[in-house]
Amino acid sequence: MNSNPKFAVIGGGSWATAIAKMLCENQSEIAWYMRNIYAIEHLKHQRHNPNYLSSVEFDIKKLKLTNDINEAVAFADYVIFAIPSAFLSGELENLKESLKDKVIFSAIKGIVPETSLIVGEHFHTKYDIPYENIGVITGPCHAEEVALERLSYLTIACGDVKKAKIMAKNLSGNYIKAKTSDDIIGTEYAAMLKNIYAIAAGIAHGLGYGDNFQSVLMSNGIREMKKFIRKVHKMKRNINNSAYLGDLLVTGYSVFSRNRMFGNMIGKGYTVKSAQMEMSMVAEGYYAAKSAYKLNQEYGAKTPIIDAVYQILYEGKDAKKVFAKLTEKLD
Amino acid sequence: MNSNPKFAVIGGGSWATAIAKMLCENQSEIAWYMRNIYAIEHLKHQRHNPNYLSSVEFDIKKLKLTNDINEAVAFADYVIFAIPSAFLSGELENLKESLKDKVIFSAIKGIVPETSLIVGEHFHTKYDIPYENIGVITGPCHAEEVALERLSYLTIACGDVKKAKIMAKNLSGNYIKAKTSDDIIGTEYAAMLKNIYAIAAGIAHGLGYGDNFQSVLMSNGIREMKKFIRKVHKMKRNINNSAYLGDLLVTGYSVFSRNRMFGNMIGKGYTVKSAQMEMSMVAEGYYAAKSAYKLNQEYGAKTPIIDAVYQILYEGKDAKKVFAKLTEKLD
Repeated sequence: MNSNPKFAVIGGGSWATAIAKMLCENQSEIAWYMRNIYAIEHLKHQRHNPNYLSSVEFDIKKLKLTNDINEAVAFADYVIFAIPSAFLSGELENLKESLKDKVIFSAIKGIVPETSLIVGEHFHTKYDIPYENIGVITGPCHAEEVALERLSYLTIACGDVKKAKIMAKNLSGNYIKAKTSDDIIGTEYAAMLKNIYAIAAGIAHGLGYGDNFQSVLMSNGIREMKKFIRKVHKMKRNINNSAYLGDLLVTGYSVFSRNRMFGNMIGKGYTVKSAQMEMSMVAEGYYAAKSAYKLNQEYGAKTPIIDAVYQILYEGKDAKKVFAKLTEKLD
Repeated sequence: MNSNPKFAVIGGGSWATAIAKMLCENQSEIAWYMRNIYAIEHLKHQRHNPNYLSSVEFDIKKLKLTNDINEAVAFADYVIFAIPSAFLSGELENLKESLKDKVIFSAIKGIVPETSLIVGEHFHTKYDIPYENIGVITGPCHAEEVALERLSYLTIACGDVKKAKIMAKNLSGNYIKAKTSDDIIGTEYAAMLKNIYAIAAGIAHGLGYGDNFQSVLMSNGIREMKKFIRKVHKMKRNINNSAYLGDLLVTGYSVFSRNRMFGNMIGKGYTVKSAQMEMSMVAEGYYAAKSAYKLNQEYGAKTPIIDAVYQILYEGKDAKKVFAKLTEKLD
């Protein structure tokens, strides 16, 4: 692989748009695949994504826009997936272009529902991609603040640190600092688990718990996350690094988080179905709760918060009662 | 000491009022000292503290109100200090009653400016109180949420765990869960240091940094706090417990925190003096920053955030420039 690789972004949402923006600061041309033809046409003529981060203006000469995923993958050495995890399998079905010799980066932060795998594991297992060609882009990072060019820190993990460094370099800029990590499994699990804790934070808020409880919930959440990830993949990691604790906080404290919003509606008394119907965006934590809970049947980590969210979302248990019991298990 | 000890609260502010409320749920009578005679009269006749948490109604038969600190101390076996650290020395000058055989609990969360000691150390050093008679009451806990009876968790630390348990039992209730700890030094330092990080969060916000940066700041803050406290008092502790991380978060994320507000004004361009004049309450973190910085000259822990706050508050350095440098040291 050459030292000046080409990049493709897969996805048309806010995080994909933010990543395209970061890459454009460093690259003369990137491929950008999105399903929505109207959005592509709008971008071509108006220089803005009409649906997400619409304030960001793109230099259109730098964008190879396509609604054929094969075209984008063929263009690139590094392919960044930034679509909701629930759509990944469907998109990959359209893929005829080989992923062999491509470096795959996941910016997805969720579980692939069909396989209950995190994205890296999914590519490794289903597409035979070696882990040295799989990477993860994690925050803490709201895409909206990238649009505003507010200083944000990313963590780029890859089995092959050299590739992590290349990705980090190409995302970095005046308002982005990117560090690298070799904990590809841990950072991706953290990014997925944090969405469950954000749902928990939302439920608590919806039920009327306050800021004191929220801080206890986050403090217990990071300890629980540490135990869970250690069971999945034991290695030396500082769970208080930005990729783990920072990512939990930026989501768990964000009133704009879809996951927190979803939880809040549940706490306020919406059924799971009606809350999902009210929200037009996918709350990744909904799938994550199920996968984490099921996985943990095997691992046996103590995860009272994940258990509580699972019971509420999947067993139809009463949020108020479940949280009353949960409060006894926190400290 | 009998197993049914008597309690005195020293202080008339919001945290003192919250503690008085918690104790009244468990005690038939407590002593409550406050300087302000008008507030005492108002409490006696209107059952509310006119200045702080004024929504809380007290059963006046349970309150032995006094503006003589000696009377309150004489009444009690357990004396809880809940006044700004800057006023502690002055109040103690009026004390003729002996503190020998009293159990002293600090709910102060700050540094005594005259001695640069945390409150427990101050009582130990200046009043010869043995550490088994010194305790700390820490959050994460906004007094305002105690007033609203929103579920809150306290950590009660004491050299003598039996005494911590007695205090915990007398603060606990429907909306308060109190756990005990033997880390009297660590919890008190955490309670003091968090105020510095809250000032840093405020400065960052005032300078225009966003939520992404805030989460990185808190993630670096807890790592820094861990290093600092380990230098001061090495023992096995989980820095992610509520008394440390929870307490940092509840303050660092609170828009009502005096420390954060103070920092915010500095970030917006107020001078330290004018920010202090604008605020009628004391920002504990102002003193804490100086003490922690000076202490750390000896300990040599890596504390870029504390250093930055110190430079801005005490060396007159430009907040914008100092934070631009700080961002290079965080990850």
